[in-house]
Amino acid sequence: MSADLRGIESHGVSRLPRYAKRLMNGWIRPAAKLTLKNETPVSVLVDGENSLGQVVAYRVMQRCIEKAKKSHLAFATVTNSNHIGIAGYYAMMALKEDMIGICMTNAWPLVVPTLGIEPILGTNPVAFAVPAKNELPFVLDMATSVIPIGKMEVYERHGKSVPVGWAIDENGDPALDTKTVMRCVYKTRRGGLLPLGGLEQTAGYKGYGLSLLVDILSGILSGAAYGASVGTPEDPRPSNIGQFIGAIDVNAFTQLDKFKERMDAMIRSVRGSNKTKGQDRIYMHGEKEWELEQQYRKNGIPLYFKVWENLRNLAQQLHLDFDL
Amino acid sequence: MSADLRGIESHGVSRLPRYAKRLMNGWIRPAAKLTLKNETPVSVLVDGENSLGQVVAYRVMQRCIEKAKKSHLAFATVTNSNHIGIAGYYAMMALKEDMIGICMTNAWPLVVPTLGIEPILGTNPVAFAVPAKNELPFVLDMATSVIPIGKMEVYERHGKSVPVGWAIDENGDPALDTKTVMRCVYKTRRGGLLPLGGLEQTAGYKGYGLSLLVDILSGILSGAAYGASVGTPEDPRPSNIGQFIGAIDVNAFTQLDKFKERMDAMIRSVRGSNKTKGQDRIYMHGEKEWELEQQYRKNGIPLYFKVWENLRNLAQQLHLDFDL
Repeated sequence: MSADLRGIESHGVSRLPRYAKRLMNGWIRPAAKLTLKNETPVSVLVDGENSLGQVVAYRVMQRCIEKAKKSHLAFATVTNSNHIGIAGYYAMMALKEDMIGICMTNAWPLVVPTLGIEPILGTNPVAFAVPAKNELPFVLDMATSVIPIGKMEVYERHGKSVPVGWAIDENGDPALDTKTVMRCVYKTRRGGLLPLGGLEQTAGYKGYGLSLLVDILSGILSGAAYGASVGTPEDPRPSNIGQFIGAIDVNAFTQLDKFKERMDAMIRSVRGSNKTKGQDRIYMHGEKEWELEQQYRKNGIPLYFKVWENLRNLAQQLHLDFDL
Repeated sequence: MSADLRGIESHGVSRLPRYAKRLMNGWIRPAAKLTLKNETPVSVLVDGENSLGQVVAYRVMQRCIEKAKKSHLAFATVTNSNHIGIAGYYAMMALKEDMIGICMTNAWPLVVPTLGIEPILGTNPVAFAVPAKNELPFVLDMATSVIPIGKMEVYERHGKSVPVGWAIDENGDPALDTKTVMRCVYKTRRGGLLPLGGLEQTAGYKGYGLSLLVDILSGILSGAAYGASVGTPEDPRPSNIGQFIGAIDVNAFTQLDKFKERMDAMIRSVRGSNKTKGQDRIYMHGEKEWELEQQYRKNGIPLYFKVWENLRNLAQQLHLDFDL
């Protein structure tokens, strides 16, 4: 719901049937507990015990915040977890405590490395949430690929063509329609999404490096799956997805109030700078999502018909009332 | 020298005349000490006292490593510092201790935010160094813009045209020659380098967000300059550049040796994956630089004639022997 409220429909209730299927098939353990291992005052290795990723990431961020209250900062690496929805949700949990929140997760492989043709990297998102004073918090929540696969699915539903620089096909040429991209990542497993930056000439190796960094902190450090070994949503094996989550108490470095005032000043100076022709606004990260949330809370969240239909079918299957 | 050895000529000895000028003019304090403030077992705010950035960042990383040995991890935010050369150098200091090293710095403004026309963001690099076992360490050292300005200077020297997606001119159109880019960033202060991802359609707002994140951790958190307020290399005011530096002891999370074995396996699986047509290699981050270093240590470092000439002139000015 939080994802839908923020306009990130690809990570919202549209995912519920997938989660439900995995739960019903026993591919995710609904009642599993988390196990904390190797805990120090500032770090913890968590075994998610194949629980729902949302539950795991929520509890782990709670733990990081508690620890950071005592020890100034705390980071967790998580093994044996699942899809967590939007990484930004967990990073934003730190905002209530006036802390900086961090969340990243690896994901099943859809992205090709620079000069490679096999999709062996996840879209591996990173999220950072930083409190401000009177301005909105800074919330960066981004896949380390040019676009997440969910955006491709949205383009598919709307029958839109794919811009150059988002994906390549089996021959390494630009993939210019959603059908080609879907074939590459789901069937032929050659070609796929490009890392942030696109091809080599426009520094795609940087997005490729950021994607690996997320995999290192989330997958390698925790002992979870990584790279090509992360299970697909349809894979009956546990996904064994890894996360890296953390909280930083600003007071460990400087006075919180001064920091927040400086955040406000920075945000205003960026937003107040000159725009390109035809543009009247420069957005801060998280601003568009916040505005959508205000609007949706007032008027309701628009759901694509197919999503609504899938939810209704799921409710029928589970003999639940469906009053939407 | 370390930058030149790694093939990053834009950040090597070619910068020496600039540093020397600032030192001779009293714009950098050569004998200044660092002041540690707000120190906790895992964090420290450092005032660089306008010392040479290289000295500041080196000492701060040493401090972080010492602290991480006792407290598992440690981060520093630095105010009143200067240009530090390559951020990767300091991140790589952690490798000797088998730790993960992190270094980021803000920089004078050359980069336009998404939908903006003013260059109010630095190229704000981030560097992460992660140890492996038998494979080379993973060393990601990247500007959060598509390219650093040094690359533009190299293109200028070679008379090469500028690819689409690297920079925009005063009208927001692609800047396709180095003269235009230099005019934008040095003179008209409209147009400039694009953040990683390029224009909005190819997710330039992600590079713009990463650039802000570096500014937040390096500039806002430390109390240094940030965004448009960072001094240019020719500005007689102290640059007041900020850094964010940290070290993470892998043992805080998992067994170091197992981690390094997993790093090796990951590196091999990425490098061993299928290549696009005409390519026979997929590179890991830091690999090209390591290979150049082996070659340069054996055969010497090639210097562009103009760089050599500038060094000779500097030596004459300072009445120093010049035997190169």
